[in-house]
Amino acid sequence: MTDVLTVSGAVELAVIERSGMIESRHIGAAVVVGPDAATLREVGDVDALIYPRSTLKPLQALAVLRSGVDLDGEELVLATASHAGTGDHVAVVQRMLAEAGLDDSALQCPADWPFDRDARDGMAAPTRLTMNCSGKHAAFLMACAANGWPTESYLAPEHPLQQRILATVEEFTGAGVEHSGIDGCGAPVHAVTLRGLATAISRVTGPADDADASRLAAAVRAHPWAIDGPGRANTVTIEKLGLIAKLGAEGVMVMGAPDGTAVAVKVLDGSLRAATAVALHLLVTAGAVDADAAAEVEAITTEPVLGGGRPVGALRVTLP
Amino acid sequence: MTDVLTVSGAVELAVIERSGMIESRHIGAAVVVGPDAATLREVGDVDALIYPRSTLKPLQALAVLRSGVDLDGEELVLATASHAGTGDHVAVVQRMLAEAGLDDSALQCPADWPFDRDARDGMAAPTRLTMNCSGKHAAFLMACAANGWPTESYLAPEHPLQQRILATVEEFTGAGVEHSGIDGCGAPVHAVTLRGLATAISRVTGPADDADASRLAAAVRAHPWAIDGPGRANTVTIEKLGLIAKLGAEGVMVMGAPDGTAVAVKVLDGSLRAATAVALHLLVTAGAVDADAAAEVEAITTEPVLGGGRPVGALRVTLP
Repeated sequence: MTDVLTVSGAVELAVIERSGMIESRHIGAAVVVGPDAATLREVGDVDALIYPRSTLKPLQALAVLRSGVDLDGEELVLATASHAGTGDHVAVVQRMLAEAGLDDSALQCPADWPFDRDARDGMAAPTRLTMNCSGKHAAFLMACAANGWPTESYLAPEHPLQQRILATVEEFTGAGVEHSGIDGCGAPVHAVTLRGLATAISRVTGPADDADASRLAAAVRAHPWAIDGPGRANTVTIEKLGLIAKLGAEGVMVMGAPDGTAVAVKVLDGSLRAATAVALHLLVTAGAVDADAAAEVEAITTEPVLGGGRPVGALRVTLP
Repeated sequence: MTDVLTVSGAVELAVIERSGMIESRHIGAAVVVGPDAATLREVGDVDALIYPRSTLKPLQALAVLRSGVDLDGEELVLATASHAGTGDHVAVVQRMLAEAGLDDSALQCPADWPFDRDARDGMAAPTRLTMNCSGKHAAFLMACAANGWPTESYLAPEHPLQQRILATVEEFTGAGVEHSGIDGCGAPVHAVTLRGLATAISRVTGPADDADASRLAAAVRAHPWAIDGPGRANTVTIEKLGLIAKLGAEGVMVMGAPDGTAVAVKVLDGSLRAATAVALHLLVTAGAVDADAAAEVEAITTEPVLGGGRPVGALRVTLP
């Protein structure tokens, strides 16, 4: 099997500074690819395997489209979302389930609290509908309904939908899958290289050579609130910069520009707090994003370093 | 100034494994010292500076005792706590403030939500009393009241209490303070080396050569719920193993045994999820803690790696 990402394959990406002293540091690897899938920049070992986690969702959504489900608009975005679980998100997921002739009892993602604090405050117990992957699971069930596939086994690796997802991952990353695991939501998650992941995102977000990919990218740009949540990092990045941005658990971040420039980042320790800033920095240095506009998004999406409630430091990207 | 901890001074401490593949890795440094302050084991650069954050609280509490405040029992533990903000914790803090002739309006820590989910659910807004450092701030105010020091400026580095804390830190770590910053709660936080920090904790938890330190260690062992919260990592470690255990923000953990063996850990990325397991592993390999008992605590305090709600991996310490 191809090597997995190790400490020796990682480099310092960002630091946390407090009162003039660096307190913490994040290491990892990252790659930027151009519209033609040529590598524009690589940092660390970008040919090592990682779990893409929820950055796999665009490819999972594409496989659903390719299964003959006529998804578009907010429903298509929910299929690729790690959503905040607001009432608006849940309403779209319920509509998707109803279109499949099902309800939330068919969802096999675990129950979870919503990320959104207000939504959470109104709830007595976690639910499957508010779990951040519920839209993806609803889309999986729509594919089953459209094709007469069994709905009880939709997460099994040998299920026709999961086989179609696997084929889509291999097609878009340009590499065979050597290892698969189980994601937090219970779905198969396929290990990929950062280079393969960035290549796939470039193909989804760049100039159309695949009608389903173009539809997916257009839907995300039209409904940024749906992929994450109002004020949250991916939503703000999409709203302000016109990129497609998608986080994955354990420190993974992908972003893609309409011209096909795309970046994939893995923070080795699994933290996401530096991921948006690192990804934007790499897109700025590649010339794909305006520096001032990126700085505005970083200021909104990066948690402050506070002492007694006042800023006393900052997260800072240390890559050149 | 002495160097701060860097990536090259850090080594792999622990990994997160999912479905048979390592997904994330934590690097950092750590040191174990014996009862006589002799170094038993060092991992990475333990002479580099770090911010100890809340692992400084035992020394801050000692300085309060040395200021003539007759603290003991639960109140003394709250003085060294990063508490979960339950009603029981808040009641002790209110008692401390009342003994100083003050109330929560004198606290200068920022308002914050309690860590405890049930306590949080019952609140409409964050408060200073539920902020995890409120007991330390109440103890600071008790020292001001006992000595006629100003209460408005108790967080200023030049305040007599803060000067006494600085002297206590230098005495217990055995090293001069070269750099100070502002902690999350607004109090001065003094940079220390891991070797100095472990030495200080050894002196606090080990065989008595300082009556105030003995009183502090005895109080923590008698009231483990008060230093953290029921079911939380430090409280469980103290209850099950008879150690003193204290976390600090940004990945710092210290533990000390009654015989004076002590460990100090800094996870460089700032995450605490591996810190209890790493600290216990080092104390087990040093012969200070029973391996089976430590494994039981690790099982309770370490977050599981789940796929669809079922365990599919684990956090694993990778130090020999």
